Amino acid sequence: MAKPLILISNDDGITAPGIRTLVEVAMQIADVVVVAPDGPQSGMGHAITIGNTLRLDKSIAFDDLGIEAYECSGTPADCVKLAKYHVLKDRTPDLVVSGINHGSNSSISVLYSGTMSAAIEAAIEGLPAIGFSLCDYGHEADFSHTRPFVELIIRQALKNPIPENTALNVNFPKKSDETIKGVKVCRQAHAKWQEEFDERLDPRNRRYFWMTGSFVNHDKGEDTDEWAIVNNYVSIVPCQFDMTAYHAISTLNNEWDI
Amino acid sequence: MAKPLILISNDDGITAPGIRTLVEVAMQIADVVVVAPDGPQSGMGHAITIGNTLRLDKSIAFDDLGIEAYECSGTPADCVKLAKYHVLKDRTPDLVVSGINHGSNSSISVLYSGTMSAAIEAAIEGLPAIGFSLCDYGHEADFSHTRPFVELIIRQALKNPIPENTALNVNFPKKSDETIKGVKVCRQAHAKWQEEFDERLDPRNRRYFWMTGSFVNHDKGEDTDEWAIVNNYVSIVPCQFDMTAYHAISTLNNEWDI
Repeated sequence: MAKPLILISNDDGITAPGIRTLVEVAMQIADVVVVAPDGPQSGMGHAITIGNTLRLDKSIAFDDLGIEAYECSGTPADCVKLAKYHVLKDRTPDLVVSGINHGSNSSISVLYSGTMSAAIEAAIEGLPAIGFSLCDYGHEADFSHTRPFVELIIRQALKNPIPENTALNVNFPKKSDETIKGVKVCRQAHAKWQEEFDERLDPRNRRYFWMTGSFVNHDKGEDTDEWAIVNNYVSIVPCQFDMTAYHAISTLNNEWDI
Repeated sequence: MAKPLILISNDDGITAPGIRTLVEVAMQIADVVVVAPDGPQSGMGHAITIGNTLRLDKSIAFDDLGIEAYECSGTPADCVKLAKYHVLKDRTPDLVVSGINHGSNSSISVLYSGTMSAAIEAAIEGLPAIGFSLCDYGHEADFSHTRPFVELIIRQALKNPIPENTALNVNFPKKSDETIKGVKVCRQAHAKWQEEFDERLDPRNRRYFWMTGSFVNHDKGEDTDEWAIVNNYVSIVPCQFDMTAYHAISTLNNEWDI
């Protein structure tokens, strides 16, 4: 039986430790092709490159593992589009995985996430897709505890269909002394970022800002991704790209005079 | 009675004709503050600036209209965050509007849209928000036919609540000889972009690409935004930022062995 084919991308760039972990796990199970950004693309959301040119070149980043890899000047969503329409063409991946992100993509962060935009772009293309993230922003983050769960989830995704028009958003708790309790399928917590802007002066005395913020979760539900992670579970949220708020259609039709 | 306050942003940049149309209509109804990108930010999706600094300066773009305006080096979502947490602070806008975009943001384009990311960012902040787009990509696009509808929709949004945790995605048909038939509340059509990559060589003989694509709509429903626009209606899709595919939670719990 032919080995399955897995396409891998991320948003931290092709040399990030997180994508290397993902490649190492996936290559035990499948043939792997990597198409990933040539530098950091964190917080890029579902951005695509339309007013600028794109570069795509063969990468040596995974030569030591014998993995076919390409690095791209664009966003994670660009990478998936280039992978499908230019790199892979007639080779259809059995699964697209993105990550492992250095940092949480749970709750509202899914909207800002480049990692998840690669997975959602794949889902739009009709491909089964998963984004993986570790709730640890450090470049030196320890990914070791995620390996058995990444393998379990990839194997399940190759065996059982991911529901149509959805991509899975998987978040791992930060490595700790406590053993992970298991995996929970969750809903996205209703939370947000409370921003602060750190105002500074540049050497030419002109003002600039750094965006900083703190995550605020008012959602007390025990069925959310935030609850799962805080309680040391791996969270899986199935995400859809139909953004229609169906319940609001009748409200508008009934209450608005248009 | 105090005039309402409307915050305005966009993704085509503060000097685009589309945002000027929006400001001209809104200032008849309300006090207006503009915080918009200092250049084009099309296709930026819900990107935010986290690895880089941000500039925010007073803008002269609307001095002729006497409107308080700021231009920002960041994305549309950055603009809304800076507006809320830095520019407006204690002034809470009664409505946030974004656009009018030069180009369609219907169907799947809502995900790639900088215009809609400003509106959705506002909704995350608990503010009523609307993104307006014209299905005409031209810089010289004619926005005249949109004015009465922009006014109608803004007035309705100031009178009736926009359903909680949603932002409205409004798309206008391109100007034609036919009169617009009315306004329809719709769902997002299930369609996608079929990409092609135009491969070229730069003057140094290195390869680069332009992303080009065609919009493919297999959704035959007459309740979609695409149907409405093709049939010369203004479409309104209420969009939510909870991306959970609730129907898929039980599927995963029943069928996956995790």
